[in-house]
Amino acid sequence: MPEPVHVTLLAGGFGGARMAHGFALLGDRAELTVIGNTGDDLELHGLHISPDLDTVMYTLAGLANEETGWGVRGETWSAAAMLETYGEQTWFRLGDRDLATHTLRTARLRAGDRLTAVTDDLARALGVAATLRPMSDDPVRTKIRTKDGWLDFQEYFVHHRHADKVEEVRFVGVDAARPTPEVLDAIESADLIVIAPSNPFLSVAPILALPGVLDAIQAAAARTVAISPIVGGGAVRGPAADIMRSLGTTPCAAGIAAHYATRYVGLVDVLVIDDADSGDAAAVTAHGITLAMAEIVIPDEPRRLQLARDILAIAGLAAD
Amino acid sequence: MPEPVHVTLLAGGFGGARMAHGFALLGDRAELTVIGNTGDDLELHGLHISPDLDTVMYTLAGLANEETGWGVRGETWSAAAMLETYGEQTWFRLGDRDLATHTLRTARLRAGDRLTAVTDDLARALGVAATLRPMSDDPVRTKIRTKDGWLDFQEYFVHHRHADKVEEVRFVGVDAARPTPEVLDAIESADLIVIAPSNPFLSVAPILALPGVLDAIQAAAARTVAISPIVGGGAVRGPAADIMRSLGTTPCAAGIAAHYATRYVGLVDVLVIDDADSGDAAAVTAHGITLAMAEIVIPDEPRRLQLARDILAIAGLAAD
Repeated sequence: MPEPVHVTLLAGGFGGARMAHGFALLGDRAELTVIGNTGDDLELHGLHISPDLDTVMYTLAGLANEETGWGVRGETWSAAAMLETYGEQTWFRLGDRDLATHTLRTARLRAGDRLTAVTDDLARALGVAATLRPMSDDPVRTKIRTKDGWLDFQEYFVHHRHADKVEEVRFVGVDAARPTPEVLDAIESADLIVIAPSNPFLSVAPILALPGVLDAIQAAAARTVAISPIVGGGAVRGPAADIMRSLGTTPCAAGIAAHYATRYVGLVDVLVIDDADSGDAAAVTAHGITLAMAEIVIPDEPRRLQLARDILAIAGLAAD
Repeated sequence: MPEPVHVTLLAGGFGGARMAHGFALLGDRAELTVIGNTGDDLELHGLHISPDLDTVMYTLAGLANEETGWGVRGETWSAAAMLETYGEQTWFRLGDRDLATHTLRTARLRAGDRLTAVTDDLARALGVAATLRPMSDDPVRTKIRTKDGWLDFQEYFVHHRHADKVEEVRFVGVDAARPTPEVLDAIESADLIVIAPSNPFLSVAPILALPGVLDAIQAAAARTVAISPIVGGGAVRGPAADIMRSLGTTPCAAGIAAHYATRYVGLVDVLVIDDADSGDAAAVTAHGITLAMAEIVIPDEPRRLQLARDILAIAGLAAD
């Protein structure tokens, strides 16, 4: 049996989880480490909630609610109803199973454990074979400026349903935060670094903003393949297209290429865009990024697995 | 309309909740303050759990599971199942609605709020008209010595199903703890002090062990009426009878009289025993305690209300 390919995936929630699932479905052929965004983390009812890490974890554990794209399948909502009775806010509702995750995470963090260790134990307990790493053990909080001023990420994303125009994005705490040794090691030892089709401005940017991460990726032996989150002029999900318009860019695969090429010079070696966006091919390569095409809308297992295979092939690390 | 009678009730969980319910059913005729035992409190999954306070609160809010005698009616158990998947202990299972209570309590305590304020807000939010007070804001932890050594209360009570012989009971922290000003005020301003038919050794004793409580009750203008937790030679529920046997006493109404009269001289003015225990009458009065008889097994609303009425009548504070 050939050695497994060490894949290190930079991931947000929705797109990150789906892409992670694809590589996980490769089984022994790939050894997957997911570096998860924690800029979306929040404290609610005294609990530490890590939405992006959990979306990846539940997806890899086979527990995810694929319909909503977040939370646990077959979830119940008794605690949320009780919290509402107690007069608590109701726009960020916690499912009962999900609440167990947050309760344990919070207890362990308060006991002094690293988020890295807690995340690892939770994922292993749920049977996740991949290694799931928070980007940092230090707090980084994504803040969004809209016409209402600076909002916490989840306030913007969930409460306001990402309907407001994004005027500015900040990752509070990122300058003082550090990527963990585990994250730097996963980058350094990777055979392939993949940037998931997550929101480049809100989900991938916090990871790349951590001091040392960009340098580590550029110094790594592995090539970096990014998957476009934009297909046919719109985001597969979420506000990526709207944000690009806010920033004066057209939401298209070429715009993603421009974003990665200009903001992170030399980071992305290959950009994978959807077969539907072949019209953007010339614009992508104009940014000095190698172009690859694949089916990147991956709602189900077969398409997730196929995209993972395609990415390995694109990187010259053919899966079989 | 006559002035309401100010009733201050010393209460554990099961018997305390039922007795509190009886007084609450008097409506405007009584103004009830419940002083709840917190010796049974525990920390689990990082959450502060107050089983006795919650049993009283849920009962007064009309949310109690009357079948089990604890927890919330129509409870779901999704979080508990998830915690089990994470490898957490399963002998003390938290229902989903109940978990919301513990989550909020813990968050507020960690934010620096007093247990007194948190308990008050939770109970008010659930529509409880009575005033519910923890006996103290300071930690007191009931420990039970059995053949296995010293156990935490819930370990003895729930995990070992109170099956082991109790060799000794300790209230760790009680000497350094203080009753709250609200508790002392409720005792001082009471028209009637009632000791619920709760376990005298495990549920009432921690309250009376708090420095100053016994003095306050003895100094109070109100008479103190205790309700026997023993009927027909057995406890209505729980290990009271077994504990009495462990201590070399016969579990009977006379034994309860002996306990209160010898351990807390001058505390109890009247002991209410069950009609079924009329044979113990002479033995009770021999302890210098006034005897009263009533139906003290109160599984349903009519009997709870009737016992509350009977107690007011016994104390010369007739309800109507």
